Amino acid sequence: MNDRKIINIIGRGNVGFHLKKAFEGKADVIEVNPHTLSELNPEADLTLISVTDSAIQEVLARLPELKGTVAHTSGSTPIEIFKSYRCQNFGVFYPLQTFSKSKALDYAEIPFYIEASDPYTREKLFQYALLISENVRYADSSQRKRLHIAAVFACNFVNHLWALSDSYLKEGGLNFKDLIPLISETVDKIKVIPPSEAQTGPAVRGDLKMIENHILELGSKDKLITIYRLLSQSILENRK
Amino acid sequence: MNDRKIINIIGRGNVGFHLKKAFEGKADVIEVNPHTLSELNPEADLTLISVTDSAIQEVLARLPELKGTVAHTSGSTPIEIFKSYRCQNFGVFYPLQTFSKSKALDYAEIPFYIEASDPYTREKLFQYALLISENVRYADSSQRKRLHIAAVFACNFVNHLWALSDSYLKEGGLNFKDLIPLISETVDKIKVIPPSEAQTGPAVRGDLKMIENHILELGSKDKLITIYRLLSQSILENRK
Repeated sequence: MNDRKIINIIGRGNVGFHLKKAFEGKADVIEVNPHTLSELNPEADLTLISVTDSAIQEVLARLPELKGTVAHTSGSTPIEIFKSYRCQNFGVFYPLQTFSKSKALDYAEIPFYIEASDPYTREKLFQYALLISENVRYADSSQRKRLHIAAVFACNFVNHLWALSDSYLKEGGLNFKDLIPLISETVDKIKVIPPSEAQTGPAVRGDLKMIENHILELGSKDKLITIYRLLSQSILENRK
Repeated sequence: MNDRKIINIIGRGNVGFHLKKAFEGKADVIEVNPHTLSELNPEADLTLISVTDSAIQEVLARLPELKGTVAHTSGSTPIEIFKSYRCQNFGVFYPLQTFSKSKALDYAEIPFYIEASDPYTREKLFQYALLISENVRYADSSQRKRLHIAAVFACNFVNHLWALSDSYLKEGGLNFKDLIPLISETVDKIKVIPPSEAQTGPAVRGDLKMIENHILELGSKDKLITIYRLLSQSILENRK
């Protein structure tokens, strides 16, 4: 890949926005809205579809003839979505990260997962991802779905537990910000040891007395109690 | 507090170890094991009891006559534990952090929560904490218990969700380490915006189709399904 590549990006959402920035200086990027597909460069080496999952099918249906590879960037859309369309070389170009326009990111460390219609396209997509990231892997649609579900547990649900802590603390005149050093330390630990070994707290100690004391203290907060019981039980079961 | 303080620390566990380090160069520290209380300096300005919660009562019962303030460092032990003992000035000196001996910490940013028998002791404990941290607050026993429960949700349960993701990924030939950039980004967000506003994922978007798809994909993993349903439901209810 000595010659400069041309890349179409369909979609100006968070992912499209960041992919454009990530390719800056490394490829010529044409960014188009899903409703102005006529602006796409038909000679582009790569066309990335970065629209919401439910809009991918419709974009594919309206896609003009394109010479290069077409790939979507969705974690949860199987590669089969391409089957009924006229694309010859297609695939998936999935960055495992959460994107927001206001927040800069170090693209080099974002893992990219590649899947493709054929070995040739697979290698091409791999090389395009290497323009951005040092962390490129292959993953089939089933693995990608697994990654997505794992990310829901590891990020979406984790964030929700923080939201619950936040309102519970607020109610007691306390400040969630005071938990940040503790949260940072908890994250730092799993960068060096597996989370199952980093587990602390009453449940992993088998301290049933403290668990019951906490549940009593939660009083009539039924939702917090249900979550407390379920996750404590799960930690207890996971002990070696 | 111009003169150099003398501080006894009872307990050589993780908390005692780090409190000793934190006071280094700022006070003269005498560190003793719970079974060698005769080594305590009776003239010390402050005696900190950093033993496991269940051992505090026994240490108090065997405590020699001490001139200065006596405080325990436990988040979940009420100040009432001192009531039946002969200490005159007592209190709580609680650092909200998770400690392990192998991991260095920036003590200045650890929040310390102070509670005391009387206003004079309260102010003294506050000043001792300021020797270590820039982040000292007052909290009564009920607030301290609330902090502890919030920390269970925000750290212990969060870590467990990471452990569950880890084994789920492993089973699919995938690597939990690939989630670290995403997890770091999730933490970075809540340093600047409240977690309820930082929420992403299918549940907060009301994407019931994806939720059902994920649950289907989880197959016979009943525990993961129960947790997935419960936390998704809780996120759905929290939407504005």
